Amino acid sequence: MQVAMIQDEIVPIEKLEPIYLDRAIFFGDGVYEVVRSYDGKIFALEEHLQRFANSLAAIDITGVDINQIRQRVLKAFAASGIANAKIYFHITRGSAPREHTYQPNLKPNFFLTVTELTDKAEEKIKGIAVSTHPDWRWKRCDIKSLNLLANVLARQDAARKGYAEAILVDEAGLITEGSHSAFFAIFGQTLQTTPLTANILSSITRKFVLKAGKNIGLKLLEESLTPQQASRADELFIAVTTDDIVPVVRFDDKIIGDGKPGKYTKLLIREFRQFTV
Amino acid sequence: MQVAMIQDEIVPIEKLEPIYLDRAIFFGDGVYEVVRSYDGKIFALEEHLQRFANSLAAIDITGVDINQIRQRVLKAFAASGIANAKIYFHITRGSAPREHTYQPNLKPNFFLTVTELTDKAEEKIKGIAVSTHPDWRWKRCDIKSLNLLANVLARQDAARKGYAEAILVDEAGLITEGSHSAFFAIFGQTLQTTPLTANILSSITRKFVLKAGKNIGLKLLEESLTPQQASRADELFIAVTTDDIVPVVRFDDKIIGDGKPGKYTKLLIREFRQFTV
Repeated sequence: MQVAMIQDEIVPIEKLEPIYLDRAIFFGDGVYEVVRSYDGKIFALEEHLQRFANSLAAIDITGVDINQIRQRVLKAFAASGIANAKIYFHITRGSAPREHTYQPNLKPNFFLTVTELTDKAEEKIKGIAVSTHPDWRWKRCDIKSLNLLANVLARQDAARKGYAEAILVDEAGLITEGSHSAFFAIFGQTLQTTPLTANILSSITRKFVLKAGKNIGLKLLEESLTPQQASRADELFIAVTTDDIVPVVRFDDKIIGDGKPGKYTKLLIREFRQFTV
Repeated sequence: MQVAMIQDEIVPIEKLEPIYLDRAIFFGDGVYEVVRSYDGKIFALEEHLQRFANSLAAIDITGVDINQIRQRVLKAFAASGIANAKIYFHITRGSAPREHTYQPNLKPNFFLTVTELTDKAEEKIKGIAVSTHPDWRWKRCDIKSLNLLANVLARQDAARKGYAEAILVDEAGLITEGSHSAFFAIFGQTLQTTPLTANILSSITRKFVLKAGKNIGLKLLEESLTPQQASRADELFIAVTTDDIVPVVRFDDKIIGDGKPGKYTKLLIREFRQFTV
């Protein structure tokens, strides 16, 4: 008899609920998105749905109707009644006995949560400290997949040392991005960030930050930085869907600028806010 | 109200079964092992439990009693009554609302299956064909984690092209290992395989293969190979817990030797069998 065991309890395999055989558990075989709302309005939903479609295609999960996903997001958001919501959703390849290879007819599993965003107003005003960590992630970080253990380990390392985010550094000694954010530096009037390759996520917040930078007259430079270069920047910040722009005032043990959010960072936060209303 | 959605159904978050919030689903935040039995006897259980303990420690999952895991494996195996069984088990960090950082007091989730091994006798007699694929995995393949999407994509690519396994090639152009196996080449009387680094799993079958190689008088060489070198080997094979040694007779489009399992590979299969009785 083929059996399963959950903690100490033996269960016949055919009695298992499908969730226990979700390929997300065995392999992280799925992709996800996070969107947020500002005062009852979801920001950049279409961009996130487009990226979600790209991620699904990249790992060959087929037959997902993006319009249906859009409807589910809107329905759950409405049901929550939360004005400033964080909406997380993923699709996995489906449930099946564990085997690396998959059958094309699996039914994808959809899961979503709507939760209240934590107020990070103080972080925006005072800025945060970030620490560096080796980038242990896989080579397809352009796919927003459920394989996030490297991100977890890096961010927990930062938290343990009292830092708010881990900035990942690849084997060539270059910064890629944060464990759950894009990373930006300002030198003079130049706004610099990592170019888009398979090594980083095509961040939607990043795209809007670059647009905001252009709007306020900054020069844009998509070129990788070393930690040494970053620590000498005039201003630093991270960008992430849930909190848009968060100033960075300490980079490992180095104080950035005068230890307070920089003037262009503050202008960018204001400019970004225009996109969200 | 914080809500979740499963397919089209809205569920209050507090009503979700914990499995839906398993960190394995959100992050692949867990580690696993696969052991097998030969005719009612589990092979190398202690080695697998030791590696499991190493993987748990490497990702900071604490408070797991390995003796309890051993008892669970033995209990489930006995309950199955399967003589030639594949026993898969994993531990995840636990269930919690999605957040990269984790609390140290989470209760780990244990899951196990015992299934009948597929008979691969024909593969052992005829040999298999393998194809190469870029190694997209993360930088800590020494940890047997649930982040296996790169392995899935590589193996599915091989299957789609009619090959039985994907052999992974890193950015330096060197073979690391298979998507779910160790990789070996024989040149003359030398048995060669990738050295143990953070780039490959510390395979238990690999260890026993090297022991078998020594027993039959082969020289051992732990040095990486390029695909070009591998395709000119006298013999090739993969090694994996579920099937121990499986001869490789085609490497991409190159026939290996005379297209049949080589003489040393056959001797190694026989020698390995001694360890399992």
